[in-house]
Amino acid sequence: MPEYRKDPVVKRWVIISTERAKRPHDFQVTPEEVKTGFCPFDYGNEHTTPPEIIAFRPADTQPNTPGWWVRVVPNKFPAVDPELPVDRYGHGMYDAMTGFGYHEVIVETPDHNATFALLDYKQAEEVIWAYVTRFRTIAKDERVKYILIFRNHGKEGGASLAHPHSQIIATPVVPKTVQEELDGAKDYYSYKERCVFCDMINQEKIEGRRIVEENEHFIAFEPYAARFPFETWVLPKRHSHDFGSINPEEVRAFAQIMKNVLHRIYVVLNNPPYNFLIHTAPVMEEGKVYYHWHVEIIPRLTRVAGFEWGSGFYINPVPPEDAAKYLVESYQEVIEKTKSE
Amino acid sequence: MPEYRKDPVVKRWVIISTERAKRPHDFQVTPEEVKTGFCPFDYGNEHTTPPEIIAFRPADTQPNTPGWWVRVVPNKFPAVDPELPVDRYGHGMYDAMTGFGYHEVIVETPDHNATFALLDYKQAEEVIWAYVTRFRTIAKDERVKYILIFRNHGKEGGASLAHPHSQIIATPVVPKTVQEELDGAKDYYSYKERCVFCDMINQEKIEGRRIVEENEHFIAFEPYAARFPFETWVLPKRHSHDFGSINPEEVRAFAQIMKNVLHRIYVVLNNPPYNFLIHTAPVMEEGKVYYHWHVEIIPRLTRVAGFEWGSGFYINPVPPEDAAKYLVESYQEVIEKTKSE
Repeated sequence: MPEYRKDPVVKRWVIISTERAKRPHDFQVTPEEVKTGFCPFDYGNEHTTPPEIIAFRPADTQPNTPGWWVRVVPNKFPAVDPELPVDRYGHGMYDAMTGFGYHEVIVETPDHNATFALLDYKQAEEVIWAYVTRFRTIAKDERVKYILIFRNHGKEGGASLAHPHSQIIATPVVPKTVQEELDGAKDYYSYKERCVFCDMINQEKIEGRRIVEENEHFIAFEPYAARFPFETWVLPKRHSHDFGSINPEEVRAFAQIMKNVLHRIYVVLNNPPYNFLIHTAPVMEEGKVYYHWHVEIIPRLTRVAGFEWGSGFYINPVPPEDAAKYLVESYQEVIEKTKSE
Repeated sequence: MPEYRKDPVVKRWVIISTERAKRPHDFQVTPEEVKTGFCPFDYGNEHTTPPEIIAFRPADTQPNTPGWWVRVVPNKFPAVDPELPVDRYGHGMYDAMTGFGYHEVIVETPDHNATFALLDYKQAEEVIWAYVTRFRTIAKDERVKYILIFRNHGKEGGASLAHPHSQIIATPVVPKTVQEELDGAKDYYSYKERCVFCDMINQEKIEGRRIVEENEHFIAFEPYAARFPFETWVLPKRHSHDFGSINPEEVRAFAQIMKNVLHRIYVVLNNPPYNFLIHTAPVMEEGKVYYHWHVEIIPRLTRVAGFEWGSGFYINPVPPEDAAKYLVESYQEVIEKTKSE
């Protein structure tokens, strides 16, 4: 029987559809082709990107030369521009603002054919450190209100280059979905005097059947009112509204759980396209008691979702409990089979 | 220079990107292949769908036989079920509801290879009458809170069958995006004591440069803060919150403008995949003074939009003023060229 479920943060109803229920192999994922040809993110091509902002590299190497293991550069085709002023103005009844902002690319490894799911823990940790470093630096710019870190994987996920990379967009406005989460979390807090995300962690631990992965500092689960098949959230166990407040031990734990969860998705769903986004509170804004930073991972498996862009009404053909089971049990089966071969 | 623009209804900021500016032929649209093989919506296959709910057909033909020109049937794989009760219940901290609702398919023509853009005015009008008829009937069911009429065109638009059809989903809850529009329009009304959509129509008429098509009763324009390239809205000029209140003269005008706008998109963008949705006030709810029903047409041209699902933050590489120009001027050029050949 189909069921409506309500997201406890933004109060979005979704339909968990059973008539249309699907298993992992029902999603006809075409694994990405390995692209050959020129790549601006490969060793030796550093001069073809805008000059690097930061890079993790041996002390005896020069900027914009090989040797780095993580490299951050401005996006060559930026959506926003850090050189613009922040001016607000009207067009008749409408409101506009100059396109100030940062748009940067984090090249995650020199290995063109790798992906986050295949990085070793150490390298994944270095990528997270690049996120944190840029996040903390950009947060000092008082014009910036929001810093969005995200990863597009695969052509259907919106990646125009195959070489493993993430992106940062920093803006003088708060993205709508984040604002809705802030508002919803604030509502919940004013009613319950508890963080809704902390409550979700507790609820998930009591039920257990949507948990995908857990370590000392983080937990990953399929959200109760998942919009998309295999949508997965990763939350720090320590309540914190601010991604920038992550400590070194948590960076290590975060890198591990991200790599592990993405590897489960990689194996069970055959390297599908996906997006992940870090949702954190706006820079230097309230949210301390009621917001809780987290990651939303959204595999791009279905196009049945066509009209959903325009209605905000989602039909999810895979109950999150089933998705969790596949990501835990089917993953284990594949890993054991691979070992015994 | 990139620019942020704010949607006046839901207060969503979008980035209109000029660094990434695109023209119609930059979107590599693969026109849909004409599917052959078995189709449940073709003449002679009526018995392969669930029994028809209504059909426009000659008086001397039997239900579920050929002869109809528009036919409405229950979706064979419904997302929701009209036989279920409306029960609300909790799962720990979470909220759920049984999957009650209507899910119907409007077969728009017996012609398998047609599409809405290619229908003649008379047939388009019949399709709209099917929408109106079902809308009014379903609205009488007191359990229904919202009736969503939409059309998925093309595989990338989420259409699983090529035969021209639209869909209706009626639910006991209001879709999130519509709720946001209601809230935003109410805010605007309490500030201005005017309908925000009526104000938009006036503003568009003053500026002129985003208008795509207009007739006595309707206007179509590219919204100022368009999320997507060639996103187009169609609004009735008469203020009304309720699609069900459309009168016969307006049905005719609505069919004409929808056909004309979709034909412009078909010609200029080479039959791209798209979705359109009718946004109307919830059934028997408030909204009379401040809400204004309308259609949102969203061509599915770009996947650069990957992370947007998770952030509600859109980067649109085609300024709506440019999109309008293409849909007016480039369309005219193609039509004249075709005539002179």
